[in-house]
Amino acid sequence: MTSRIEKLNGIKKAQQADAFIISSPSSVKYFSGYFFYFEYGPSPFQLVPAILAVVPEQDNCLLLADNEMAQMPCIDPALHVQTYETYTFERPPDPAGDCVKKLAEFILRNKLTASRIGIERNALPFSIAQMLQERFPLIEWINVSAALSRLKAIKDMDEINCIRQAAHLADIGQATVLQFAREGMSELELFSLAHKNMEAEIGSRVPLMADLSSGSGTASGGGMPTNNIIRAGDLILSDFTPCLNGYWGDSCNTIVIGTPTTTQRKTFGLVREALEIGIQAMKPGIKANAIDRLMRSHIGNYPHHSGHGVGTIYHEIPRIVPYNDVLLEEDMVIALEPAIYENDYGIRLEHLMLITSSGAEVLTRFQHCFEQ
Amino acid sequence: MTSRIEKLNGIKKAQQADAFIISSPSSVKYFSGYFFYFEYGPSPFQLVPAILAVVPEQDNCLLLADNEMAQMPCIDPALHVQTYETYTFERPPDPAGDCVKKLAEFILRNKLTASRIGIERNALPFSIAQMLQERFPLIEWINVSAALSRLKAIKDMDEINCIRQAAHLADIGQATVLQFAREGMSELELFSLAHKNMEAEIGSRVPLMADLSSGSGTASGGGMPTNNIIRAGDLILSDFTPCLNGYWGDSCNTIVIGTPTTTQRKTFGLVREALEIGIQAMKPGIKANAIDRLMRSHIGNYPHHSGHGVGTIYHEIPRIVPYNDVLLEEDMVIALEPAIYENDYGIRLEHLMLITSSGAEVLTRFQHCFEQ
Repeated sequence: MTSRIEKLNGIKKAQQADAFIISSPSSVKYFSGYFFYFEYGPSPFQLVPAILAVVPEQDNCLLLADNEMAQMPCIDPALHVQTYETYTFERPPDPAGDCVKKLAEFILRNKLTASRIGIERNALPFSIAQMLQERFPLIEWINVSAALSRLKAIKDMDEINCIRQAAHLADIGQATVLQFAREGMSELELFSLAHKNMEAEIGSRVPLMADLSSGSGTASGGGMPTNNIIRAGDLILSDFTPCLNGYWGDSCNTIVIGTPTTTQRKTFGLVREALEIGIQAMKPGIKANAIDRLMRSHIGNYPHHSGHGVGTIYHEIPRIVPYNDVLLEEDMVIALEPAIYENDYGIRLEHLMLITSSGAEVLTRFQHCFEQ
Repeated sequence: MTSRIEKLNGIKKAQQADAFIISSPSSVKYFSGYFFYFEYGPSPFQLVPAILAVVPEQDNCLLLADNEMAQMPCIDPALHVQTYETYTFERPPDPAGDCVKKLAEFILRNKLTASRIGIERNALPFSIAQMLQERFPLIEWINVSAALSRLKAIKDMDEINCIRQAAHLADIGQATVLQFAREGMSELELFSLAHKNMEAEIGSRVPLMADLSSGSGTASGGGMPTNNIIRAGDLILSDFTPCLNGYWGDSCNTIVIGTPTTTQRKTFGLVREALEIGIQAMKPGIKANAIDRLMRSHIGNYPHHSGHGVGTIYHEIPRIVPYNDVLLEEDMVIALEPAIYENDYGIRLEHLMLITSSGAEVLTRFQHCFEQ
């Protein structure tokens, strides 16, 4: 993982940055391995879950909230871990003050008091920035978010393995829906079973972004599961986006309970063809919006993106959308999700894939089956 | 809910603030009703889920990300909702620019270009602060976080009702564990069942912070459920903290599978007495650390707080800890959770309660039972 910190040298040169203070959970995961378990929302005890301060090839410091030490096993052993005080009960904690104190030590020991430091401007709390600005007025703070996003879009082998495992969890979810969805169950019951099977697979809780809608709920693209009862003839749209230790999978299938109408079967076939067209066209050097155009021209327009990058963020660059003429590259991981929405039902099908040297390897392994 | 915006007048006067730009999810929920569903982590499309800009009695603007409109039903109808552009697929979005543009309009129309604006310094992204500072160099940005926390600690009737419902979900979870925990089940299976029952109760997903540990896992206070198989004689510690539309409940029980040892039964009794002592002592005017001391002196020290406020944050002020000599007040909602941890097992018992004019009303209704 230290090799990923070395990748900061390119940004260092291009943006003339002397050091980096990285604070978005996704970038911290990417560079350090540290994963903040976000499912409870932001911690009331923390400013940010973690900050990584780096001078490439010289110094690094992974600053964690002291109530986050349980998550230590994920962390790159080459990093120097420090904690800032957040959870104390015998005296009042001062998280902002202690966090800034430790960042100041990093700045001083690396002689950065009149330097240019790369930050993620949207992910740095104003409190930290303001205190550092007051203490070190000669530092220039430069936003390197876009450059970091471009770096993160190209996956390393270990990252691809992580995403492969997350994709496997998505497969388990889709297999559960296909096998166990029945007339008379509620959407929540079916969701709960799919979620439980994913969790059993790895032996821990799995954060899961999910649409699971039945019947007319599919017409608007899905939504969270409710107590709606699944009825004969209903379509069920299941979009499962599980997160495994900070890397996401993504997948969507649509099935029918019982026998579909001829039109529904035809619609499903069209969407599956559109997805196949997208997968077949995937390769390094093709423009993102060319993929988008190929899929939309096969089935007509739909009111969302055709796909997106997936990694430490569930929707990252490159976006597969009409405006985006960026060239796709080897080792990008992309989800494609064409759809047709009619008045009373909708069908969306999604696979996750890795761009290889000559095409794409589909990482989600389930088959898109319409009928059980 | 507009009455809660009026409460800002006190802070306005005390801190000489002309306006407020509120950006923490908890404060936004408190003042606007808007709940950001946080279970998927921060959205890659958003700077922040929502910002509430307010000049009390004059103007307000609830600025939402445009992909958050699905959550509109929770919002106070007296608020003016605007959106900033985050999810567009036909042209590149500029969330930071569009968000700042709309905040600038608020500042200009309320003649705030040389004013003092109250902010939550830890919850405002540096990007927004920096762009506003550059455009409006005469504005003074003052941190009102602590004052907002004090305001939020005293609950209104509608908030107490919301917390009561969240406490009911916690009750359902505890009842499930007591009724269905069996030798041979995994912790995750039991957890999944408890979670499913909570979700079925309200017909939607329920964010759930939870410890569910069995056997020696209880000795360290618990942790997330795993594939560990529950065995005869195991203790099971279940700490359920569900979130319902932005308000949290909290509860903890410890049960035994089969027959406890005489010492375990005695230990359970002691912890239950400590909790009862805490509940009986609760009333307006008592110091937070007096409650803490009463419970610790009954059962000895434990390596965490004795309790905490609960509301739009799961751990908020007042903290029931040794250093905190703040006076408790009517309409605070407090969780108490004394514990005894031995080498091979631990017992923690928790109830959530409302401080009334003369004592405390326990909001979690389940009984702490050690044996099934």
